[in-house]
Parts: sequence; C-alpha cells; structure tokens
Amino acid sequence: MEKFHVEQLTIIGVGLIGGSVASRLKRDGSVGKVVGVGRSIQNMSFALQAGLIDEVATDIQSAVKNASMVLVAVPVKQVESVLHEIKLSANSSAIITDVGSTKGDFKRMVEEIIPERAGFVVPGHPIAGSEKTGASAANANLFLEKNVVLCPLSQTLPAALSAVSDLWQSCGAHVSTMSEEKHDKIFSAVSHLPHVVSYALVEMMNRRSDSAELFDFAAGGFRDFSRIAGSSAEMWTDICRANHEHIINDVDSFIASLETIRELLHLGNYGELQEIFAAAAVARNNWAAKQ
Amino acid sequence: MEKFHVEQLTIIGVGLIGGSVASRLKRDGSVGKVVGVGRSIQNMSFALQAGLIDEVATDIQSAVKNASMVLVAVPVKQVESVLHEIKLSANSSAIITDVGSTKGDFKRMVEEIIPERAGFVVPGHPIAGSEKTGASAANANLFLEKNVVLCPLSQTLPAALSAVSDLWQSCGAHVSTMSEEKHDKIFSAVSHLPHVVSYALVEMMNRRSDSAELFDFAAGGFRDFSRIAGSSAEMWTDICRANHEHIINDVDSFIASLETIRELLHLGNYGELQEIFAAAAVARNNWAAKQ
Repeated sequence: MEKFHVEQLTIIGVGLIGGSVASRLKRDGSVGKVVGVGRSIQNMSFALQAGLIDEVATDIQSAVKNASMVLVAVPVKQVESVLHEIKLSANSSAIITDVGSTKGDFKRMVEEIIPERAGFVVPGHPIAGSEKTGASAANANLFLEKNVVLCPLSQTLPAALSAVSDLWQSCGAHVSTMSEEKHDKIFSAVSHLPHVVSYALVEMMNRRSDSAELFDFAAGGFRDFSRIAGSSAEMWTDICRANHEHIINDVDSFIASLETIRELLHLGNYGELQEIFAAAAVARNNWAAKQ
Repeated sequence: MEKFHVEQLTIIGVGLIGGSVASRLKRDGSVGKVVGVGRSIQNMSFALQAGLIDEVATDIQSAVKNASMVLVAVPVKQVESVLHEIKLSANSSAIITDVGSTKGDFKRMVEEIIPERAGFVVPGHPIAGSEKTGASAANANLFLEKNVVLCPLSQTLPAALSAVSDLWQSCGAHVSTMSEEKHDKIFSAVSHLPHVVSYALVEMMNRRSDSAELFDFAAGGFRDFSRIAGSSAEMWTDICRANHEHIINDVDSFIASLETIRELLHLGNYGELQEIFAAAAVARNNWAAKQ
C-alpha cells in the first residue's frame, strides 16, 4: 500500500480513541492538518498543547467545514446530533467514519439523517481500549496489531472504504470488513454478554446480606472476572440499548448453558460436568496460545 | 507472637502450596526438619535438591511417623486415602492440617476416618495460588498479605489451632477462623460460581457454529473474564462435587439475576438497567481500591 496521507482530518471527540489516531498520524506525518472539537475545554487544551491536534474548533459545523475525512469518536448518544451538524456543513465528498462499539444503530442513523452522503460513510469499530480515558491517555501504538472491523453500507464507495482501511492500517491495525449485522452478532457474544455477566455477578454479590464478607475474601479469580464490571455503566447501557436483540438472544442462550450445568450438579453427573469444563479449558488455552 | 517453630513438618504433596510453605519455613529457620512425600519422583527430587525438604519419604506412613505437624496438600480426591494412612502411623498428638478449597467435605472425612484425632485437626484454606504448579513454582512469599481461613472442628484443641495459625502468620498471611459451613458458602459465591460461569461462557462460545470468528475477535475483556476457564477441569469438578449444594443455590440465584436483566432489556427499561450496572461498578471499584 502507498503511504497513507489525508489532507485535513477532523476528529469529533478527542478522547482515548480519537487522540490515539491523531497521535499516530502526526507522528508519521500522514496528515496535513488535524482539527479537533469536543465538549471539555480542558481536554481540548491538552490535545492542542500535546500536539495531537493543530486547531481546536468551537463547534462541529466549523470543525468539519474543510475536512477531507471526519472521524466521529463520541459516545453513541451524541452520534445523532453530530450527524445533523455534519449534514449542514461538511463537503459532500468528505469521508465520514466512526468508532462505535455497535454498528447496526450507526447504519440506521446514517440512513435516516445523511442518506445523501451514504457513499462516503464507512462505519468502523477499532477493537482496542484502555481503562484510561481522554486525550491524555492517547497513545500512537494503541492500535498496533489490534483488530479494526469496518462495516461498509451497500452504498459505500470503494474509494471511501479504501481510505478508511488505509487509515487504520497506517495505525498498525488488522482491518476486516463484514456486515453490520454480523458485527453486532459477534460482539454481542464476545464483548457485550461478558460485560452483562460480569455486572450481574458483582451486583448479585453486592445485594447479599453477607456482601462485606464476600468482598473480604474475594481474590485473584474475582479480580480478573470482575474487572469489566468497573466499566462505565452509562456507556454499557447505551451499548445494550443499541444491540439489545442480539444481547437478549445471548443472555437466553447463556442461561440455558447455566441450567444444563445446574442440572448436572443436581444429578451428580460429574463426568459430564468435567467434559464441559475440559472443553472450555482447551478452547480458552488454545485461544490464549494464539494471542 | 513468639517466633514460630516446628520440630518436624511432614508435607504430603510438595506442590505449589506445600512447597511454598516449606520454602518460607526453611528460609526463616522456623522448622527442624521437613519431610516430603509425593507421587512424582521428578517433583520430589527437585524439592530435595532445591532444599525445600530435607528428606523424601517413600510412603505416607513412614513420612508421618515422627511428624509434629502434618500438612496435607494433595488434590481433594486423594485426601481420603491420605487420612487412612495418617490414622495408622502418625503420633497421636501430631497436628494435622490441610489446604483444600472446600472445608465441609474435609470435616466429614476427618469425622469418619480419624475421629479419635479430631482434637489435633485444623482444617485450613490458604487463598493464594498461581497458574504454575509443582515444587518448581514454590515461592517463600506466596502467602504474603494473603488470607488463610481456618475452620476448627468443635473438638479442635486451642493449642492445635494456635499452632496452625502461627504457621500461616509466620508465612506472612492474615488468618481468620470461621465455621466450615460459612467458609463453603462464602467461597461458593466468590470463587466457585465465577469459575462455573467462566467455563459456561467459554463453552457456549465454543459450541456455536461461528466460534472460530468469535475467538478471532475476542479481545481484552474476554481475556480477563475467561482466564479462570483455563484452570484444571478435574480440580474444579472436584470442588463442584464437594460444595455442590451451595454452588447450586448460587447458580440459581445468578440465573435469577440474569433473568431480571433479560427482562429489563426486553422491556427497554434502560434506566433500571443502568442502575444495576452502576451499583456493580461502584461495588467493584470500591473493592479494587482497597486491594
């Protein structure tokens, strides 16, 4: 691939993800100008002083005015209003991409709010994160060897898809494309369900009358298992809302798995229980060995 | 407390736990002689050469013959036969303790096999571990700042309880005592249920027709969440067998929690869903801050 270069990248939401993209492109000289816009003055000042962005815009319409590419990296709740602003001001050929954890909802918003721009829209999801947030957590290597999934619309132009794919590859990521439907099904199982389960487990312990003792004796297994229950409740509620159909299916299917195990315990069928545990241990250890 | 000292400590099963106790006592000069016995010649040779133990016994009866204290550190399945051997050969005043993850089953075996020795028996559970196993993983600091729970029988003599408590405190651990019933109830919730849930989640992913893709896109949250599903299936089946009543209750209660969440998703009641997530996040982050 030719060296990726973009004339003006406008980043809406210069947090961990947006800031890390900016950091990488600036480091590699792959961008003419980075314009940032965001709600926190403190965060935007940091981004400017740290050289992640060249310019802070006071509002979204002026931020996107001359953009060749717009990276929407705000919480999912703000996406709708951001698209309305983009509609009013961006060049008709500006490429628009996002970084949300769910893709079906983004597609629906694009088709509703900016259908005339659909050829230039490339929904995306970088599978990378950190417990840290904000521009101060930005890291040029955040996406190195990480997966980025792009879910082009049926109208998305090949040139737009290539440009966004090149952006992420220039950040060191592995890029795959799939339908938004398949994306939301896969991530319901591997990410959204585990979060729901971790929240439910901690909440169940917290609700018990002996919860103080439970937490006193919780150790390493609990630490790992419950780490994701420390995540933003607001963000994960939004993800549940955006992908509730797949998540409901997966919760049902997981309850069925637990009921099978419960029945084996009740019957004292420890042979079959051990087979289930062993199959899981093999699958997990095979997965870990490939990471 | 006076400096802990034991004349002859016999360790049955010189693995991670038994080896780490030996390592600490030898380092501190708190033991006259350590006699070890175990099934793997290779492991026992290592323990001897590394100076964890002074002597390898060829069988349990000769190992325990002159012991002032016997540490039973074998998998739960071998405990019954170990107690039969101890019965035949140990001094009647030898203090006997164990390190098993479940305590009700150990109490029942003691009462059935060596009731005449009950005054000298101190069931124990150090809450420390590692993914590594065997004497080669022994570490004198494994128990530093870790919890050890002792579950004395109604017949356990105060002097025996003190001696075992001193042993663990000399290893740097925090010692608590509670009934075996309470122990098994607490650890069902904080350890056994999370393992069952982690196995069930990985098994559910593994069973799906799109499992290859699921594992391809699983990332950091999945890594942490599923780590304990890589644990020994045999050991965790044994723990489920030993503590099945509490675990069945906790699985039921957890299924009820998931059903509540499923209903909120179905009804679109995201306000209440966010309250559940937020309560869990607060509880988890408070817990983590205290660690």
